[in-house]
Amino acid sequence: MRKTSTRLADGRELIYYDDDKAGMPSAPPPRDARDLEPAGSSSQIRDDPVLDEWVVIASQRQDRTFLPPVEQCPLCPSKPGHLTEIPADDYDVVVFENRFPSLTTRVSPVPESRGHFVSRPGIGRCEVLCYTSDHDASFWRLPPRRLRTVAAVWVDRTLELSRLAGVRYVFCFENRGEEIGVTLSHPHGQIYAYPFVPPRMERALRSAERHRRDTGGCLFCELVADELAAGERVVAASERFVAFVPWAAHWPFEVHVYPRRHVPDLPALSEDERDELVALHADVLRRFDGLFGRPAPYIAAWHQAPVSADRDLAHLSLQVLTARRSPTKLKYLAGSESGAGVFINDVMPERAAELLRQAGR
Amino acid sequence: MRKTSTRLADGRELIYYDDDKAGMPSAPPPRDARDLEPAGSSSQIRDDPVLDEWVVIASQRQDRTFLPPVEQCPLCPSKPGHLTEIPADDYDVVVFENRFPSLTTRVSPVPESRGHFVSRPGIGRCEVLCYTSDHDASFWRLPPRRLRTVAAVWVDRTLELSRLAGVRYVFCFENRGEEIGVTLSHPHGQIYAYPFVPPRMERALRSAERHRRDTGGCLFCELVADELAAGERVVAASERFVAFVPWAAHWPFEVHVYPRRHVPDLPALSEDERDELVALHADVLRRFDGLFGRPAPYIAAWHQAPVSADRDLAHLSLQVLTARRSPTKLKYLAGSESGAGVFINDVMPERAAELLRQAGR
Repeated sequence: MRKTSTRLADGRELIYYDDDKAGMPSAPPPRDARDLEPAGSSSQIRDDPVLDEWVVIASQRQDRTFLPPVEQCPLCPSKPGHLTEIPADDYDVVVFENRFPSLTTRVSPVPESRGHFVSRPGIGRCEVLCYTSDHDASFWRLPPRRLRTVAAVWVDRTLELSRLAGVRYVFCFENRGEEIGVTLSHPHGQIYAYPFVPPRMERALRSAERHRRDTGGCLFCELVADELAAGERVVAASERFVAFVPWAAHWPFEVHVYPRRHVPDLPALSEDERDELVALHADVLRRFDGLFGRPAPYIAAWHQAPVSADRDLAHLSLQVLTARRSPTKLKYLAGSESGAGVFINDVMPERAAELLRQAGR
Repeated sequence: MRKTSTRLADGRELIYYDDDKAGMPSAPPPRDARDLEPAGSSSQIRDDPVLDEWVVIASQRQDRTFLPPVEQCPLCPSKPGHLTEIPADDYDVVVFENRFPSLTTRVSPVPESRGHFVSRPGIGRCEVLCYTSDHDASFWRLPPRRLRTVAAVWVDRTLELSRLAGVRYVFCFENRGEEIGVTLSHPHGQIYAYPFVPPRMERALRSAERHRRDTGGCLFCELVADELAAGERVVAASERFVAFVPWAAHWPFEVHVYPRRHVPDLPALSEDERDELVALHADVLRRFDGLFGRPAPYIAAWHQAPVSADRDLAHLSLQVLTARRSPTKLKYLAGSESGAGVFINDVMPERAAELLRQAGR
């Protein structure tokens, strides 16, 4: 993989990652010819004293690009008359700082915290990761060579962003589908570097901590072993990884992919393991699209160890979920979920696993 | 208020609540003439060992009534040729057990729990609360007399459902709008009786517990006082209640309504207080509809004390939020929210409060 870093017209960083081209000469990256205002941000994080968690307040995002027509796609390569976020006329994989970031390293100061009203600058970074220059592709259809590059990029970004001052957690994820609010249809993922450990990971780590204190074992290693032994919720498995619908799935179709061995994060995997894992990842997404014979709106989220805390407790996993519960219906988070925090799942996890096994044929 | 209980053809309870009609004779409730299968449920709750919370698995809900045309509305009064869930030819307020419940008192046994796979029968009750027989009404347009009845019904249901064996928490809420997945457009709320304290309330209680241990004070009473002192996020206030956008609002437009005095739940309010509170509730919803000049999709959630635990710590509040962030755009819970648990709010809470104050004019 070849990595070439450059700057966009407003100062944001953009990095080309090329599939393996050993021995090919490297040309200097093309210049961004657009006239852009310098990138800034008024992002802050605020503490919710009731739920004991941080919320990101990023008001400059309200006007972000919203479902542009394909000929105005900002993630396609640039061509004469249509300058995009990517100055090159083609690319393999590219990463750049989001133009409408929730978190950035260029943050403004925030008013002093008083009493229960605690805020901090929204330090961090939000990156866009384009998997391919092909506007109509999808993650699971990428060739193995490209999947390998994408996995290497996740590792590179995790390591790079972990080094930024104030960053406590690196979160790689993909949102796909207008149904879940995706504003750009070009196949892409995102990477958020947060200045705190996110609430979901924090809760998982506290569960793992209690379990280790009580039994000495790793909660996640045991769950993987138990799911393999039970079998009925396993969707697919490979030598070193397993994909299953969790016992208490929150969503109608939700799959967790775990390494069988205790691994904290993506950088801790060998290259062989990465290839195997990303192939299983693609296989799960293929099954999601197969479920109802049409592209599934989905969220794919990598749960890794925090940058420094609790690294021994954490166990890497990928969570994939879709909001589609039937060919014509979506799952919404309404009163019970959004108000009380209680998920109501209309599909038995064992049935969901069966349907996902069948969808792979 | 007059209360008349009856049974539907499949055995579910239905209760008419009439606005004050002192001295009027009470007729026996009409019989449900439909031919319905006996109501049943295969609901169960499963423990998520990673997030340490219960999930409700209710697979019989998958086929529930979905956006029927108005002439087939199951919440309108019955008329010849169209028998609905309500046998009467008119009603003021009516409550009945949901035909597709997430939780019921008629639960089947569940398989024995093993190791990390813990489940229990989904004991509880899910009720539908129709505010009016007028299909095209909305909560905030109800006359004061009707709002008074609805508030009395919340109190009655909270007390009644708290007495059911196994019920630990009563949650009154309303979902409105197709945009958030509401499957019936007739104005109605819902009441869930859960067999556990919901995760959101559990977290709030643990925060309140820490704060009381550290300082001796009530976290919620202090937040109310601090918001009143700051003023910039206050949307509306009355003598004994205040409505504000919280400091760390999770949603673009989110309002919390609190009693100024320390009150655990709706039954602990005086009738005068109830009248004042429900008027403020209606005022907030009116402002939500005024924001963009069209009906807002919203969730309104009553956070009350649990049935028996932590009743001294709890402080009643109403949470109202809308998924609409602009005239044409919705807020979705995508990767950051659903995957990491980190809310990204695109609207400054102070700006949201300002817009909601203006929307009330």
